[in-house]
Amino acid sequence: MTETTILKNVRPWGEAATDVTVATGRIAQVGPATVWNGAKAVDGGGAILLPGFVEAHTHLDKTLYGMAWNPNNVGSTLVEKITNERHSKSRLGLDPARQSARQVALSVAHGSTHIRSHVDIDTEHGLKGVLGVMETREKYADVIDLEIVAFPQSGMLIRQGTKELMDEALSLGAEVVGGLDPCSMDLDPKGHLDVIFGLAEKHGKPIDIHLHELGELGAFSMRLIIDRTRAHAMSGKVTVSHAFCLGHNDYLAVGRLLDQLAEAGIAIMTTGPSGYPCPPLIRTLDAGIAVCSGSDGIRDCWSPYGNADMLERAMFLGMRNDLDRDADLRRAVEVVTTGGASVMNIAGYGLGVGDNADLVLIDGETLAEAVVSRRTRPLVMKRGKVVARDGAILFAME
Amino acid sequence: MTETTILKNVRPWGEAATDVTVATGRIAQVGPATVWNGAKAVDGGGAILLPGFVEAHTHLDKTLYGMAWNPNNVGSTLVEKITNERHSKSRLGLDPARQSARQVALSVAHGSTHIRSHVDIDTEHGLKGVLGVMETREKYADVIDLEIVAFPQSGMLIRQGTKELMDEALSLGAEVVGGLDPCSMDLDPKGHLDVIFGLAEKHGKPIDIHLHELGELGAFSMRLIIDRTRAHAMSGKVTVSHAFCLGHNDYLAVGRLLDQLAEAGIAIMTTGPSGYPCPPLIRTLDAGIAVCSGSDGIRDCWSPYGNADMLERAMFLGMRNDLDRDADLRRAVEVVTTGGASVMNIAGYGLGVGDNADLVLIDGETLAEAVVSRRTRPLVMKRGKVVARDGAILFAME
Ligand SMILES: [Zn+2]
Ligand SMILES: [Zn+2]
Repeated sequence: MTETTILKNVRPWGEAATDVTVATGRIAQVGPATVWNGAKAVDGGGAILLPGFVEAHTHLDKTLYGMAWNPNNVGSTLVEKITNERHSKSRLGLDPARQSARQVALSVAHGSTHIRSHVDIDTEHGLKGVLGVMETREKYADVIDLEIVAFPQSGMLIRQGTKELMDEALSLGAEVVGGLDPCSMDLDPKGHLDVIFGLAEKHGKPIDIHLHELGELGAFSMRLIIDRTRAHAMSGKVTVSHAFCLGHNDYLAVGRLLDQLAEAGIAIMTTGPSGYPCPPLIRTLDAGIAVCSGSDGIRDCWSPYGNADMLERAMFLGMRNDLDRDADLRRAVEVVTTGGASVMNIAGYGLGVGDNADLVLIDGETLAEAVVSRRTRPLVMKRGKVVARDGAILFAME
Repeated sequence: MTETTILKNVRPWGEAATDVTVATGRIAQVGPATVWNGAKAVDGGGAILLPGFVEAHTHLDKTLYGMAWNPNNVGSTLVEKITNERHSKSRLGLDPARQSARQVALSVAHGSTHIRSHVDIDTEHGLKGVLGVMETREKYADVIDLEIVAFPQSGMLIRQGTKELMDEALSLGAEVVGGLDPCSMDLDPKGHLDVIFGLAEKHGKPIDIHLHELGELGAFSMRLIIDRTRAHAMSGKVTVSHAFCLGHNDYLAVGRLLDQLAEAGIAIMTTGPSGYPCPPLIRTLDAGIAVCSGSDGIRDCWSPYGNADMLERAMFLGMRNDLDRDADLRRAVEVVTTGGASVMNIAGYGLGVGDNADLVLIDGETLAEAVVSRRTRPLVMKRGKVVARDGAILFAME
């Protein structure tokens, strides 16, 4: 159990300054602190207080962060990229346990308190990735809550044995069933969705499926996902990640899909990608759809970008969706906090009395100013314990 | 005249470490330094050496940077935004001299050594912006080269008296004739282009025109600009800023426009905007077109974003254009350095012997790694004088 801490002079969501008292890992009081025996006071310096960022889509197992720079000279087709990655893992000696721990440290330093990570499963590397990230999940359980999605990156039906590995990963403790481009990856959308919805039913677990397919193709896959979500009564338990097809330029078609997604209780994950079409953030939220965000791959064999900063991610969401108004930027911040918590179904998330003391302080005159400035985080707290200060983690790395 | 300085252990363009000797404001030697009497040695610590960044498109006169945060609650039409801005300038007490100086300091701290700034001219504020930025240009002549574009933000033909003010600004020393959306702003593309090409001819100055118009409309305006550039023999002297129409989805039409732009010697400025269509960077460069970039407005009445960091801008260009390969990211860095120098026709720009010692050191394992990490710049030099170190400017602000 952690000690009692009074965060003095902090501004919840950028509102008026107050004190927040934390005891036994939870928020005990919001407002001028009553006397607590042995309470430790921490000066918040007028910083903005938010619940910890939720990194709701990344790939912890395969970041190259902290390793020597890997020059990228890969071809541009999807198959070239996936094949290059599968082979590079051995060539570079990519250790999923070590690498996922490095990214966790980076995430915590930037104020994330929860991560959903897709983890590759394929017949070449088996469950090495899942086991490595599980090791990190256990080792760093005090500083981050980590959820694993069993993810068939190299295809499921086209690689015999993959679905059995998926099944095994879910038995071992992966929390979510992953999937990938039902049409373009396995070339058998019905078969692909049969397997992942079957696994979800068997294990009683939610689904998070990567859907990069564009335009009509993506809309077709989306319709199949919507149908099955209804048929399996999985409202609130299915996330479609990326959903580039919601960025295509048929306004009526996008509107119909948004309505159907809302009605089916399907959540959307968007990174606010600047080089791809993507879901229109405000309209997606206004349709009543739960929206979360994430860094996706960080400095990996696909892409050199990324730093695990979900406050910068809120800025990217804002820039991508042309959000200039303060009220709209606040919604982008909600996506990387409460939105992620809603999609991942995190209990006790928030700034209310009784909520988990999973907190981040951000420096900023207002919430919007904090987003565009992206300054170093003064303080990050996990279950009442300070885990990072001024951008530096306060726990040991092995 | 400045003293002789030896930058020891620096990597030009990320290549092998060497020394660079700077004397009388120029690069005197590249390679192991010969003995110079009284030369001062500066340890480059293995950092990457680039010629100073070229901020080739911004709006120095109207940044709100350094002022109290201005909450944005403006409507979404162009007219609402322009009107709001014109009125906000008085309401907020926006002082173009003070504000442009603040942004210059921010730019220099991030390693820019040259700026092209569009500056508003309208019948409400007259030449107040131009005079203010001219004041900054003179005051900070030792730390930045600053070029002014006379810019009719609120329209030219629709506001009687604006073209006379443009003429006056050019006589006073604005270096470039600006323009804005010939169709959608003045609703008279022929009339608009008659005026700006006429002013260019009268003053013997180049043109830089904002072109946000989309799709066929933008392509139409582009064709008119191409025709006049040929007719006025202005090859190498016309820049089209934004050129969103080059991002539309008719591959053949875009290809034809790129060929015509290259043949007419017209340059393109793109910020790599994540929320708008934009010129495809690599194809535009491959067509033989000079391409530069810029921050555009920084924290102003239009948009809350921006920090004047052209290294981050290279990253945005990379993300927007899906540039994952190291060789492609190098081209993005070239856009924010040599590309800008080429468009602005900067003499003596580069890392060769005899070139101006306008330099920036950037921290990074490789050029690509430096771009994605965007660390604080260790050193910025203007004409042989160190003007910023570790992100802090070394000159006095008034
Ligand atoms: Zn992903
Ligand atoms: Zn502009």
